[in-house]
Amino acid sequence: MIAAWGPADRSGLEPIVGGATAADGFRAAGVISGVKPSGRPDLALLVADAPAGAAAVTTTSLVKAPACHLTDRNVADGRAQAIVINAGNANVCTPHGEEHTQRLADATAGHLGLDPADVLVMSTGVIGVPLPVERIEAALPEAVAALSSDGGDAAATAMLTTDTRTKQVAFRVSDDQGSCVVGGMAKGVGMIEPNMATLLVIITTDAPLGGAVAKKVLRSAVATTFNRISVDGDGSTSDTVALLASGTAATPPGLDTLARAVQAVCADLAHAVVSDGEGATRVAAITVRQAATESDAERLARSVATSLLVRAAIHGGDPNWGRIMMALGNAGVDVDPRRVSVRCAGVTVCRFGVAASFDRGQAAIAMDRPEITIEVDVGTGDAEATVLTCDLTPEYVRFNAEYTT
Amino acid sequence: MIAAWGPADRSGLEPIVGGATAADGFRAAGVISGVKPSGRPDLALLVADAPAGAAAVTTTSLVKAPACHLTDRNVADGRAQAIVINAGNANVCTPHGEEHTQRLADATAGHLGLDPADVLVMSTGVIGVPLPVERIEAALPEAVAALSSDGGDAAATAMLTTDTRTKQVAFRVSDDQGSCVVGGMAKGVGMIEPNMATLLVIITTDAPLGGAVAKKVLRSAVATTFNRISVDGDGSTSDTVALLASGTAATPPGLDTLARAVQAVCADLAHAVVSDGEGATRVAAITVRQAATESDAERLARSVATSLLVRAAIHGGDPNWGRIMMALGNAGVDVDPRRVSVRCAGVTVCRFGVAASFDRGQAAIAMDRPEITIEVDVGTGDAEATVLTCDLTPEYVRFNAEYTT
Repeated sequence: MIAAWGPADRSGLEPIVGGATAADGFRAAGVISGVKPSGRPDLALLVADAPAGAAAVTTTSLVKAPACHLTDRNVADGRAQAIVINAGNANVCTPHGEEHTQRLADATAGHLGLDPADVLVMSTGVIGVPLPVERIEAALPEAVAALSSDGGDAAATAMLTTDTRTKQVAFRVSDDQGSCVVGGMAKGVGMIEPNMATLLVIITTDAPLGGAVAKKVLRSAVATTFNRISVDGDGSTSDTVALLASGTAATPPGLDTLARAVQAVCADLAHAVVSDGEGATRVAAITVRQAATESDAERLARSVATSLLVRAAIHGGDPNWGRIMMALGNAGVDVDPRRVSVRCAGVTVCRFGVAASFDRGQAAIAMDRPEITIEVDVGTGDAEATVLTCDLTPEYVRFNAEYTT
Repeated sequence: MIAAWGPADRSGLEPIVGGATAADGFRAAGVISGVKPSGRPDLALLVADAPAGAAAVTTTSLVKAPACHLTDRNVADGRAQAIVINAGNANVCTPHGEEHTQRLADATAGHLGLDPADVLVMSTGVIGVPLPVERIEAALPEAVAALSSDGGDAAATAMLTTDTRTKQVAFRVSDDQGSCVVGGMAKGVGMIEPNMATLLVIITTDAPLGGAVAKKVLRSAVATTFNRISVDGDGSTSDTVALLASGTAATPPGLDTLARAVQAVCADLAHAVVSDGEGATRVAAITVRQAATESDAERLARSVATSLLVRAAIHGGDPNWGRIMMALGNAGVDVDPRRVSVRCAGVTVCRFGVAASFDRGQAAIAMDRPEITIEVDVGTGDAEATVLTCDLTPEYVRFNAEYTT
């Protein structure tokens, strides 16, 4: 993992195999409903054995999926017991979108004997095509029958769209108060593609967490992880991150430890999303230090991370600090170029606003790696932030030009 | 020209051959100073026969070139007589940038017998490399000797960097009050590349314009033209648009006619810039109508125009209205998707938020043209705005990844 990404302190976090069903009290399944034309698995279920403490963060887009609205509503009481996820059709800008989303929640609740208000819905895939809701309803009994505490893999697979691999993370978390497990799964190859690459994330833990605390822990973790990645600057209509806490751990760790673990799961899943970014060959962590405030640092880092010219230079292994200066200048944050220093892959290329003398060959070798850092000191204060991005490649453009609705 | 771009009313505007020296009272030249490694012309001069009414708009970047600061200062009194333009080196983030920019103004003024405060400076090219100011000073006498009222072409050529062609426009402008000429030249292949593709524009007219009025006319024209184009969303450290008015026209037209002509020159030069965008194969005019305010319409149109996914779809000739909806949702403007209709190249692809039935083959043929329109009705009010963009191509990425500082 790139330094400066995720919690600095990972003490007490032991990586373990698994994802959303690593924690006790959860079962999952993934089956084929026939929504994806490819015939691949496209219906996932994640179910807690009993009502769980729950929180969710959904897209800020003003064109928001019915699934996000339903999830917002059903998680508002801080409790949920099941999440139904369909891939291949986002059910956005469709004639009966809200009705179909409600039918997914109702059918899931019916087969599980739950209150529909305890079911969350996530949908990802093409926009504007009516959801073949009957196919999903018909496949739900099979999904319920397949539910298993080993079902995390199958669910992580069934939620994918253009992803090239599943994204799963889990930790056993311990401190002097006790221990628990925090795990999760994600799909998405950016914050990006509304047709096929929405970001969906499910995090589970066996620690006990009431809805209000779960919300606070989740929002805080998302703020420095999923909200600080960028593949192409486009946000989806359907992005959703949900956290469920079963509370079955007998002696859980302290809240601070748990919060660090949730942040680590989010950070590692976010990293997996960026490194699987469409066409990406390289992940870059853009760290801005010495900013007046963390918000300034984040804006500056985000401006660098979303600049097409910077991202194309990262693809070319070019320590092009002129483009980084340009991106800093466009961030809307007061920056004095004469105080700015830039390191690309550890090589100082600009010192106090002017070119540093460095070995171009050495810099090119340093940048020719799958993970690099770009560090910018702006000399204004002592706040910092890191934004994770990937290189912009001809393959990204080709993929998104040739893919047709 | 794409409809909805530039002034709707072009009555009284007759296109004529020429550019920045089409209007009476101006001479120009372009010579080789040896700053460009290619040995191509890289030093341009534009000189008015007498002090001219002047206005300029420079970059909003907070990392701003010394040339922009000097131009801001020297145009503040509403008067200027010469513009010196060097290409190949932007003189940004260099150890003696301000001193070197002042030396360019001083040397130009010296050879022309002017007050240095009447000279504006524009510099474009690589960032962070010290400007070889002696080469430019040595070449200035040749440039002064070459000044000619036929020199517009040579100047338009010498200001280019990665542009593939010169950009010149001129109109003879008449109304019932009189007539004049308005012309101009530009360089830039986007609002973009700080290393090589800064936007520089010079507009001249023989109409009499005091500095204050010139400023108002120029700002108003730039707001709906150069500020509404996007090649990659990156702004340069050195963007400058300057207007000089010689006042030699005996019976000029009315101010409204003149303002329309300046807007038309800006619109046509801006169009030339976008169609020469790096790697671009297609120009797209994104028009948003029925917005609550013009500012809302502009934000919505800009969000669509800068979306990588929309621009990749334009490259692929794909009427992907789902991506357009996504971009509208991210504009930060209240939009009700159920009121949104979208036409791509004249074909209605989305009506009131849901898919319209249309012939995909016909839509693909309509979009496979060098210039297309994307029209979005948002059903909120009656304001509109158009933003011009180009398609995102694998060539853009390849060019900017392989080009090295």
